[in-house]
Amino acid sequence: MTVERLQEMVSEFARRRDWEQFHTPKNLVMALTGEVGELSEIFQWLTPEESLAIRHSDAGRSKVDEELADVFLYLVRLADVLDVDLVAVAEAKVRLNERRYPADKARGRAVKYSELDSGDATVG
Amino acid sequence: MTVERLQEMVSEFARRRDWEQFHTPKNLVMALTGEVGELSEIFQWLTPEESLAIRHSDAGRSKVDEELADVFLYLVRLADVLDVDLVAVAEAKVRLNERRYPADKARGRAVKYSELDSGDATVG
Amino acid sequence: MTVERLQEMVSEFARRRDWEQFHTPKNLVMALTGEVGELSEIFQWLTPEESLAIRHSDAGRSKVDEELADVFLYLVRLADVLDVDLVAVAEAKVRLNERRYPADKARGRAVKYSELDSGDATVG
Amino acid sequence: MTVERLQEMVSEFARRRDWEQFHTPKNLVMALTGEVGELSEIFQWLTPEESLAIRHSDAGRSKVDEELADVFLYLVRLADVLDVDLVAVAEAKVRLNERRYPADKARGRAVKYSELDSGDATVG
Repeated sequence: MTVERLQEMVSEFARRRDWEQFHTPKNLVMALTGEVGELSEIFQWLTPEESLAIRHSDAGRSKVDEELADVFLYLVRLADVLDVDLVAVAEAKVRLNERRYPADKARGRAVKYSELDSGDATVG
Repeated sequence: MTVERLQEMVSEFARRRDWEQFHTPKNLVMALTGEVGELSEIFQWLTPEESLAIRHSDAGRSKVDEELADVFLYLVRLADVLDVDLVAVAEAKVRLNERRYPADKARGRAVKYSELDSGDATVG
Repeated sequence: MTVERLQEMVSEFARRRDWEQFHTPKNLVMALTGEVGELSEIFQWLTPEESLAIRHSDAGRSKVDEELADVFLYLVRLADVLDVDLVAVAEAKVRLNERRYPADKARGRAVKYSELDSGDATVG
Repeated sequence: MTVERLQEMVSEFARRRDWEQFHTPKNLVMALTGEVGELSEIFQWLTPEESLAIRHSDAGRSKVDEELADVFLYLVRLADVLDVDLVAVAEAKVRLNERRYPADKARGRAVKYSELDSGDATVG
């Protein structure tokens, strides 16, 4: 299944329930915030290692699957309502980031591209 | 381009910069939160109508494209690290929601499925 | 009761449960994100008018009270752990904003201070 | 300075700029989301230890002070608009949590109160 096909499913789902009235971009951004909040709650008290190990437990996987699905569904719906091609804009952004973050300068440094030329090698 | 191919691009992008060390699920959820925050900032003071009209201005489109791309890229990366098939779990969730929200009961009502059987017709 | 006293209550609450180990700034920011997500869920489908009217219903008030409390408690705890005087830094920020947003220039315009000098009168 | 006095300052600040029209609860929740997103960006790539050490660097302190101030200011404004006594509802919530999380049962366990009676000792 493609993102476009998923988008049609979600759009049809909303249309059949007369929920299009609620799906303004503003409202959908808030719904997305709610779902990212639920995703955060899964990981908030975990160590970095525990956050990675979660996929190896059935209960963990199932929570993670459900929340990632919810975040993705609202994102897909938001993109639909705003008439944005999600995969295309993401691909364009990766191309831009390839130029902003040259591999040799950015290696091992989690800094913003605007700070890459400073000597600061610390994370953050 | 498919979500899988995008996922490979992003994974390769991180690998070449030695950024895999930063990409724990926990950290990626926080990065996703940051991007959803930026998306929120675009819409925070807009009326519902203005939030929809934003796609008709060039400046609006370009901001929206960039933030949706950022949200999607971190989501795609998070799904990759957690070994989740984003499109498959989203499709499964739509199927579940089809059962949870029967069209005739849910029509025009923005309530949670657990409250569908109450007579409460108010939104929220 | 003052913010300082509340901070002591929360700190004592965490200490008695041996929860200090979980309360790193990073984890507390994620917990704050979770609570802001729950706050968002209350308002996501409401019109601007409904969002204001919520305080007039008992059910609405009680949900809003609880979520505002949760957000505030994690914020207070985070400030404690980071050794930040919340009221003092907020007051300093208002003073800074007084200078950044001169009343005559900013009147009725929801734009960022860096854009105040442009002729752009549109919101956002 | 008290929270009430800060609330008056912020209210006066908004009134003098004719910004009350933008300050619906819905809009303020989105503004709060934006600020929590900026707070998240400070901490997203940091290890738990680095997240705690940030208060010892001048640059770190100043970023943290500013973002905590912004989050607090929008929270204070939101509470004002919704007519909620922030400190009172937070104190009441701590009292409720004292009952929900008995110290002996909750010790060292980051689980939700509804799961306290299960034998599950894992975090999360």
